[in-house]
Amino acid sequence: MTSLSDLPIRDDLRGRTPYGAPQKAVPVALNVNENTHPIPEDVAADIVARVAAAVTGVNRYPDREFTALREAFAGYLGHGLTAEQIWAANGSNEVLQHILQAFGGPGRSLLGFAPTYSMYPLLAAGTGTEYIAGARDDDFELSPETAASEIARSDPDLVILCAPNNPTGTPLSLETIEAAYDASRGIVIVDEAYAEFMPEDQPSALTLLEGRPRLLISRTMSKAFAFAGARVGYLAADPAVVDALRLVRLPYHLSALTQAAALGALAHADEMLAMVGEIRTQRDRLVSELARLGYRPHRSGSNFVLFGGVDDPHAVFEALLERGILIRDVGIPNHLRVTAGTEAETTAFLEALAALGRPAEAASLPPVNSRS
Amino acid sequence: MTSLSDLPIRDDLRGRTPYGAPQKAVPVALNVNENTHPIPEDVAADIVARVAAAVTGVNRYPDREFTALREAFAGYLGHGLTAEQIWAANGSNEVLQHILQAFGGPGRSLLGFAPTYSMYPLLAAGTGTEYIAGARDDDFELSPETAASEIARSDPDLVILCAPNNPTGTPLSLETIEAAYDASRGIVIVDEAYAEFMPEDQPSALTLLEGRPRLLISRTMSKAFAFAGARVGYLAADPAVVDALRLVRLPYHLSALTQAAALGALAHADEMLAMVGEIRTQRDRLVSELARLGYRPHRSGSNFVLFGGVDDPHAVFEALLERGILIRDVGIPNHLRVTAGTEAETTAFLEALAALGRPAEAASLPPVNSRS
Repeated sequence: MTSLSDLPIRDDLRGRTPYGAPQKAVPVALNVNENTHPIPEDVAADIVARVAAAVTGVNRYPDREFTALREAFAGYLGHGLTAEQIWAANGSNEVLQHILQAFGGPGRSLLGFAPTYSMYPLLAAGTGTEYIAGARDDDFELSPETAASEIARSDPDLVILCAPNNPTGTPLSLETIEAAYDASRGIVIVDEAYAEFMPEDQPSALTLLEGRPRLLISRTMSKAFAFAGARVGYLAADPAVVDALRLVRLPYHLSALTQAAALGALAHADEMLAMVGEIRTQRDRLVSELARLGYRPHRSGSNFVLFGGVDDPHAVFEALLERGILIRDVGIPNHLRVTAGTEAETTAFLEALAALGRPAEAASLPPVNSRS
Repeated sequence: MTSLSDLPIRDDLRGRTPYGAPQKAVPVALNVNENTHPIPEDVAADIVARVAAAVTGVNRYPDREFTALREAFAGYLGHGLTAEQIWAANGSNEVLQHILQAFGGPGRSLLGFAPTYSMYPLLAAGTGTEYIAGARDDDFELSPETAASEIARSDPDLVILCAPNNPTGTPLSLETIEAAYDASRGIVIVDEAYAEFMPEDQPSALTLLEGRPRLLISRTMSKAFAFAGARVGYLAADPAVVDALRLVRLPYHLSALTQAAALGALAHADEMLAMVGEIRTQRDRLVSELARLGYRPHRSGSNFVLFGGVDDPHAVFEALLERGILIRDVGIPNHLRVTAGTEAETTAFLEALAALGRPAEAASLPPVNSRS
């Protein structure tokens, strides 16, 4: 039998294992920051009707410029944006890959602020871009001064700011984004995958776009829009940036079905986002209840909470999994991350965690076998 | 206003323009080798029903391993293949990109045989792979000897054989594929995008897979399956190759809707492919009629025909466009390419071409304005 090492694979890939959280079938899955609320039935019906119309013409290539979809994203984002400022791809990971293909690559570098989204170094590696892990302040915060000094120190070609930050949930101030932009000579990406879960009075980086042609703001429909399965990420930036991304995208990269489904969801944006308030409520409940249980939750502007004070994260993870509850060990010592689910899912998690005892007791649990 | 040149775009992208044939709304579009037959109504209904089921769970990430789809592709391809030997992505372009990310990249080279599919050099550039344009024999044929000697001359890390070849339509013998494999130390890709249009007694490169772990065979649903809008390409190869591609794909790269739609189409493969015979008939008609009109059509195993003897391809292209018929100038001097459409579309093309007069007369047509 041929093994991977028998093949002429690239040297930098040898010995690596594929990215990915376990995909386990469990009653309560709170591990990958999905929106656990299914989309409303009337919206689903409209989406299916639009897909059905697209299927009648599916023998033809899709609109390579996905013009109607770009117009719909511009309308959804507001801030005076137009379709010329919008890009989209199969998930925000592909949007970021396009950015790195156009502005990164061999001889160029991307600065992120660790701990942050674990795909950033992988996307850098996949495009031959050097990845630099910058430092944060205490409690995973990132001040304007720290951002600027880290940029000055490493002089990267691209900077990526995850706002709010995954996996810590930490919100990011506009002042830090402005400072990063001013300190940088290159592209500054603000990854707003979780932006809709920020407090309503917290402005988006979209308010900073005017006059900043090197500022790129990526979004996703996976989280607030409950559309993870449809794979739709998008971007707002200067039209010249969109021109650059057009040079590296594969032709017809967005299928006619994807375009139709996303247009359907955007046509019902208010209804699709109706669950966001409820998810914020469950997130805030997680923060207060985790503290009450003796853990140390971090402040969160997203749909998940990172909590410290876990003496043995592996044991707690396995004990919860034994009870049908899947959360995430993101590799930060003494921490675990949990997604804010429905009220019932959040209750199930909190009750199971409480049943494990106080943090010090939970740590002494015997290991249990995970379900596969 | 910011222009592309004001941005810190990669040097190798400066001055480039995006790939893509014009997307014009014309009555008879025979320019991008689509299957011009819409998919059957009952198949469309099943596809929509499967997509509707997927939409109910679209708030969750899709199956990252798309296991059911890989099983369905293995079943469709036959030849004793199993799901472990199958890969898929958003169009065969993305499949090829994955291959180049895993086995190509900086310091490595890809050999193609010009003229061939114009995306190969672009995919190479997008992954930092050097592209080498090898030579063909007369009439765009590729003999085992020529393939082997070109490989020996350039010693590439990867070889790509388009079989049948786009844009020339030229079939490729299994002997040439075997010779290329034996002459090469690296990956040998056979791009069988148009394989279903080959004569029924012509075996696929799939028959060569056994015992050749460096042989990769890519396919697409865009052509024979009339599924260009859904963006589904796939690959058959050694399971170790699939392991390698897993290292470079973006997680969840195939949406739940794409997986559902492709499964629906594959469940009705016989019906989806029912038009293939009719398209072959129109292709053979194009070859004989173009010859009768005084042009020099090349032999074709695909759903399109390249024909020479065109004194002024631009004038003929524009004259046909003026009559609502869009074909393709692929940049080969004195040649044009036309897709085999429905019987009515093929007739419209042939009658319009005949109305332009004999090739020598067609060349002296005054230029006309193109529709936009």
